[in-house]
Amino acid sequence: MPNVNRQLRLAARPKGLLAPGDLQLVESSIPELQEGQALARVRYLSIDPTMRVWMADIPQYMPPVAIGEVMRAFGFAEVVESRHRQFKKGDKIVGLTGLQDYVVIDGLEKFPFQKIPAVPFVSDTTFLGTLGITGLTAYFGMEMAKPEKGETLVVSAAAGATGSIAGQIGKIHGCRVVGIAGTDDKCKWLAGDLGFDAAVNYKHSDWKDQLAAATPEGIDIDYENVGGEIMNAVLNRMNLHGRVVLCGLISGYTKEDPALTSFATVLMKRLRVLGFIVIDYAPRFTAAAAQLGKWKMFGKLKDRETIVEGLEKAPDAINMLFTGGNIGKLIVKL
Amino acid sequence: MPNVNRQLRLAARPKGLLAPGDLQLVESSIPELQEGQALARVRYLSIDPTMRVWMADIPQYMPPVAIGEVMRAFGFAEVVESRHRQFKKGDKIVGLTGLQDYVVIDGLEKFPFQKIPAVPFVSDTTFLGTLGITGLTAYFGMEMAKPEKGETLVVSAAAGATGSIAGQIGKIHGCRVVGIAGTDDKCKWLAGDLGFDAAVNYKHSDWKDQLAAATPEGIDIDYENVGGEIMNAVLNRMNLHGRVVLCGLISGYTKEDPALTSFATVLMKRLRVLGFIVIDYAPRFTAAAAQLGKWKMFGKLKDRETIVEGLEKAPDAINMLFTGGNIGKLIVKL
Repeated sequence: MPNVNRQLRLAARPKGLLAPGDLQLVESSIPELQEGQALARVRYLSIDPTMRVWMADIPQYMPPVAIGEVMRAFGFAEVVESRHRQFKKGDKIVGLTGLQDYVVIDGLEKFPFQKIPAVPFVSDTTFLGTLGITGLTAYFGMEMAKPEKGETLVVSAAAGATGSIAGQIGKIHGCRVVGIAGTDDKCKWLAGDLGFDAAVNYKHSDWKDQLAAATPEGIDIDYENVGGEIMNAVLNRMNLHGRVVLCGLISGYTKEDPALTSFATVLMKRLRVLGFIVIDYAPRFTAAAAQLGKWKMFGKLKDRETIVEGLEKAPDAINMLFTGGNIGKLIVKL
Repeated sequence: MPNVNRQLRLAARPKGLLAPGDLQLVESSIPELQEGQALARVRYLSIDPTMRVWMADIPQYMPPVAIGEVMRAFGFAEVVESRHRQFKKGDKIVGLTGLQDYVVIDGLEKFPFQKIPAVPFVSDTTFLGTLGITGLTAYFGMEMAKPEKGETLVVSAAAGATGSIAGQIGKIHGCRVVGIAGTDDKCKWLAGDLGFDAAVNYKHSDWKDQLAAATPEGIDIDYENVGGEIMNAVLNRMNLHGRVVLCGLISGYTKEDPALTSFATVLMKRLRVLGFIVIDYAPRFTAAAAQLGKWKMFGKLKDRETIVEGLEKAPDAINMLFTGGNIGKLIVKL
């Protein structure tokens, strides 16, 4: 049994992007397993914008990570030793492993670890992406949106792990789908490989005109991941009685100010804004993953990954989410 | 037949509160009635916050009033002469009369005039208030909120024409109802006469603590009329999956800035924000007014009016809405 566990612990609450030292790499020893515990080796870490929220001492949907605690993260791990009756050596699991080499599972986790079935042609990392927390987020967010054939759906951060799946689910439902992303490469991937009807690079100065041209009948659904300026531009083109699925506000996560946007448009256009956090749907994760898996198998969902190697690179990886460095699911491989 | 019609026409778009001259009093002549037209004497004008929106050249739910046009307003009028087959002399009507002594009805109005039935014990002005546009707004807004027994409802601008009815409808549904208003007198009226469970004066420095004390189990429904600071304080106490009925944002109507509020709370607390404008419900106005009338008859809805005399006082009356001068329905009597 290994006895050294490298961990990234929260040492200071970041201001803006993560600075060196906000997450501190420490080596701790692995205690002997007690009855009812299992030890798992973390293989892959899911790097998600919500981690930046967890680092901040602000009201949120889970307690913030405390100073000194191992940084919270979803991960994919393999059981290396077990005195837990639900897990045996070799089991592949997904859950809140945290940013560390090893995780001790004791069955008392608020979000229990899920055993991953062996599925042919599905890679391990898919259980963090399309069939994991970000794919599930897209699934339930789009369920709330109730997309109808012929409606126009706009997705922001569309080349991200959640946005890229949300947009493709829109296509499955027969929507006209327009993605907003921050590089021409991302836009090419969306409109080319993923079959979005259009993709707009918000870094071009005329992007609002491009958005208008791409949504000639206005916008019925905003799958919102970004907030701020981008959200305002989308709200301005919403049709009466449109729906805004408020899935994320990443443009605000690295700012001191809260994510401010105008409610005036919500009023004038009688929009319905549906705030949502995927963990509320935990009891339905398995059924949803089965549906996502079916879509993936039939080629209706494509995905892409950006893989960063090494636990010590996790802080840089988190920053990539806010500087636009990744396409698709961002993973740290240990 | 009278031949002089005093009118308040929009001469300049106000910045902030209305300044003298923004609405200009002019005398125009009344043209001879054509076949299909009727002439009505305006008796009462409904003074509503939305009028300030109509004066601004911003995107909204109806075209802004053009410079030079008679200022748009709901009013109560009596037909004095008719060549219109639906109206006869003496008919009492309600509709968009505009700020003027007389209105010519030609049947081409986008929001047609409604004939008012003679109802015992119901005053004419009630058809502008509790049984009129503001009461109907409260009715349909509360219908969207789907209030359930035992839930906590907070109403902002609670002593206004809409807020006071919305809160009482909350009581009818068995909610704990807390009003927010800007004077102790208003709060006394809400908690005393109207049966609100509590009322908080936001001009007291400790009002947020008072709001917290008045909502020990958090807030399930925000019937929002104000926006800005007050809305933020309410959002901060919302329960998970609460509903925000976005009925008005009056704190922003006299400002250059749009009504900015944080969407972060909407996301973290998974709120549903339901933007809404009462005119969407026009086909159901009659049925709703019947229900409001029944509640009023059985003493479940109480109302109050602030009456200002004289057409020339209408601009000051409009400003009262934003400085907190009125309690209940604000009416200009001609």
